[in-house]
Amino acid sequence: MQPKALIFDVFGTVVDWRGGVAAYTAPALAERGLDLAPEALADAWRDEYQPAMQRIRDGGRGYVPLDDLHRENLDRALERLGIADAFDAAARDALNPAWEALPPWADVLPGMARLRARFLLAPCSNGSTSLMVRLARFAGLRWDCILGADVARDYKPKAGVYLASAAALRLAPGEVMMVAAHDGDLAAARAAGLQTAFIPRPDEFGTGEPETITQEWDVIAEDFGALAERLGA
Amino acid sequence: MQPKALIFDVFGTVVDWRGGVAAYTAPALAERGLDLAPEALADAWRDEYQPAMQRIRDGGRGYVPLDDLHRENLDRALERLGIADAFDAAARDALNPAWEALPPWADVLPGMARLRARFLLAPCSNGSTSLMVRLARFAGLRWDCILGADVARDYKPKAGVYLASAAALRLAPGEVMMVAAHDGDLAAARAAGLQTAFIPRPDEFGTGEPETITQEWDVIAEDFGALAERLGA
Repeated sequence: MQPKALIFDVFGTVVDWRGGVAAYTAPALAERGLDLAPEALADAWRDEYQPAMQRIRDGGRGYVPLDDLHRENLDRALERLGIADAFDAAARDALNPAWEALPPWADVLPGMARLRARFLLAPCSNGSTSLMVRLARFAGLRWDCILGADVARDYKPKAGVYLASAAALRLAPGEVMMVAAHDGDLAAARAAGLQTAFIPRPDEFGTGEPETITQEWDVIAEDFGALAERLGA
Repeated sequence: MQPKALIFDVFGTVVDWRGGVAAYTAPALAERGLDLAPEALADAWRDEYQPAMQRIRDGGRGYVPLDDLHRENLDRALERLGIADAFDAAARDALNPAWEALPPWADVLPGMARLRARFLLAPCSNGSTSLMVRLARFAGLRWDCILGADVARDYKPKAGVYLASAAALRLAPGEVMMVAAHDGDLAAARAAGLQTAFIPRPDEFGTGEPETITQEWDVIAEDFGALAERLGA
């Protein structure tokens, strides 16, 4: 059965968070004469991502939007990198919108234009509505609405995030396809009843290697153009 | 101070619900040989709108999306019009998407294209996310995200709907402008701290008369083009 809506993981699947955060933060590192590759800052910042959400998933903390987690995570990353003294609070606040300024992978905009002709399209990201709106403006993404963490007030891969996203469109889980470059995201989406599409993104972590997949996903396509092809869009 | 986002009442302000519902339901009336103007069905259906939401605003009923209220309201309207026997449940279900197939007023698409270059744009409607998404596809509206009733799980003019909409964009209420053809909507938005813009829609109720306004709204503009002009967009 063809899905009626496609919902997308965003960081890594739609946009290049590592390249984008590195480009955004590079001038601040250079200005301070810090001898640190901006990609290393991006990686250190991202390393705090899962642990910060985990407390919320576990119920040890109420829902806090990712914008605020990113700001807290930046404090930890700078500390860990030994460059905390170089950034006062205002400088850190100025770095935080890096996550709203991430470039799409080259295939994304043409692929989404084709997919849009046939399906409803929405992010199902751990980013907040605000973050997704501003990122969409930066990257030129055209969504029908913003779904994901803010709708469920919880974080993927909790089942409620996928279910609340389908429910917001008044669709059954099986009428929605989750598109992601991450095996764990798809495993959770499938467990919640959604269809699944895997798009390898070998450049996400700068390794040249896509994630290993552990299941036969409903669609496995090289990029968004190939996904459109496979779905007849 | 210029707003950063404009949020819009939709039914009446952006789209012509009366003409749209009449056009959508006319064939079903004609097929059944019913001697009723489709505008009278639209009016009777809309007459149930405020009472249905009021129980929820008052807390006498939990949040129910407008899609479901519309379906319940249709039962009441058909009863009141004395034509309930002519429509079985399936026929009523088939009429309910009328609210997703409403045409925009003539100035809306060009005006919104100008406004979009300068502001974030979102509906702040009592329609659900699902309803707003499908209506946007039908009418060609390009929103940054869907705000309104579903975000707050309550109905305008409750203050929480305006406040939750601003908060979803991580903006202060005063950074957001509510755009509406309805004086009461703007009064509630202003009381919640939002900026306000009134757009008269004399054809909303088929009377040729716009709503009477009771306050000097921050902007009063003839249509969306004039609103863009006034806001320098």
